[in-house]
Amino acid sequence: MSVLPKALEQLIDSLMYLPGVGQRTAERYAQYLLRSDPRRTHELAERLSTLHQSIKICPKTFAYIDKDEDVSRLYSSPKRDRQVVAVVAEPYDIVALEKTNLYKGTYHVLGGLISPIDGILPENIRAQELISRIKDDDVQEVILATNASVEGETTALYIQSLLGNTSVKITKLARGLPIGVDLEYADQITLGRALEGRQQML
Amino acid sequence: MSVLPKALEQLIDSLMYLPGVGQRTAERYAQYLLRSDPRRTHELAERLSTLHQSIKICPKTFAYIDKDEDVSRLYSSPKRDRQVVAVVAEPYDIVALEKTNLYKGTYHVLGGLISPIDGILPENIRAQELISRIKDDDVQEVILATNASVEGETTALYIQSLLGNTSVKITKLARGLPIGVDLEYADQITLGRALEGRQQML
Repeated sequence: MSVLPKALEQLIDSLMYLPGVGQRTAERYAQYLLRSDPRRTHELAERLSTLHQSIKICPKTFAYIDKDEDVSRLYSSPKRDRQVVAVVAEPYDIVALEKTNLYKGTYHVLGGLISPIDGILPENIRAQELISRIKDDDVQEVILATNASVEGETTALYIQSLLGNTSVKITKLARGLPIGVDLEYADQITLGRALEGRQQML
Repeated sequence: MSVLPKALEQLIDSLMYLPGVGQRTAERYAQYLLRSDPRRTHELAERLSTLHQSIKICPKTFAYIDKDEDVSRLYSSPKRDRQVVAVVAEPYDIVALEKTNLYKGTYHVLGGLISPIDGILPENIRAQELISRIKDDDVQEVILATNASVEGETTALYIQSLLGNTSVKITKLARGLPIGVDLEYADQITLGRALEGRQQML
């Protein structure tokens, strides 16, 4: 005998589609929504139902933009330097870099990292689009801002090899000690990279 | 400058309304939905928007039931013994008890536990409805199945005092060692209760 009403069971099934959400968490979400103001649930439903139709991909940077925009504001703004391009894997990586408030260049979203085991091959990431962009905007520096993982490093090496015969300056994010972490707790690889990339004090 | 499209930022705001979901988790959910098949997102939106109108409260047990049902199937079914009532705090507690496959009585949902600090007083839980039900259905046993917390015990004591001058048998869920937990890892209070409630071996 089914214990919960059908509408509730179906909602729990749908909530379990969210990443990392199992039966218990989905039940907790559903229960909470059921006890809360229906307007909050309706608002969430409305925003979900219009999500895909409200967002598109920027044809220049491949970041997410509003449907009524032509290109990303992080590209069109006169405050951004189009001759510097940070290459990132996913649109959300842009959010992380923007939060530093230190970057004034533009972005290029690859749409993934090379990972043959997951079926993501070099031709599945937006590498050719980056090369076109470098020509079009006379890009002077490409910052490889991919994850410090095997896939991230592989992808960075691939992009580097593609750009090998151009005059563009290629840099990558520094690897080293995260701020606030004690030396004794840093893992060996991080510490090794911090040692290799040691910076001269002024 | 806003980095994300407005539709995405609004969805993240709405997702943060879910219990225990902060900015990062909401971003992860939104990102995942945006990359997935839009039909899954639409299905979730549809189920959310119809949630409140599809569900009502059973007038007998106060469990959640479908809008087109009169009373809970856990009450109307001839397989359930109406003379035994398990008193629980929330509709979801029913799910937990049903999963044991050991209970064939019916339920009464209090709709909360007494907790003056949270503004939940004895008059805010469905205690009078339980008393009416005991008379109507000639209930023989009331099982106090509230949490093993201060609020759960307080509520159980309150219900017990209300039913003190009736002939109904009052029981509560046994406190003791959880299955699979080593004695040495059990907390003192649990172990104390297990000792007090020790059961004679046959």
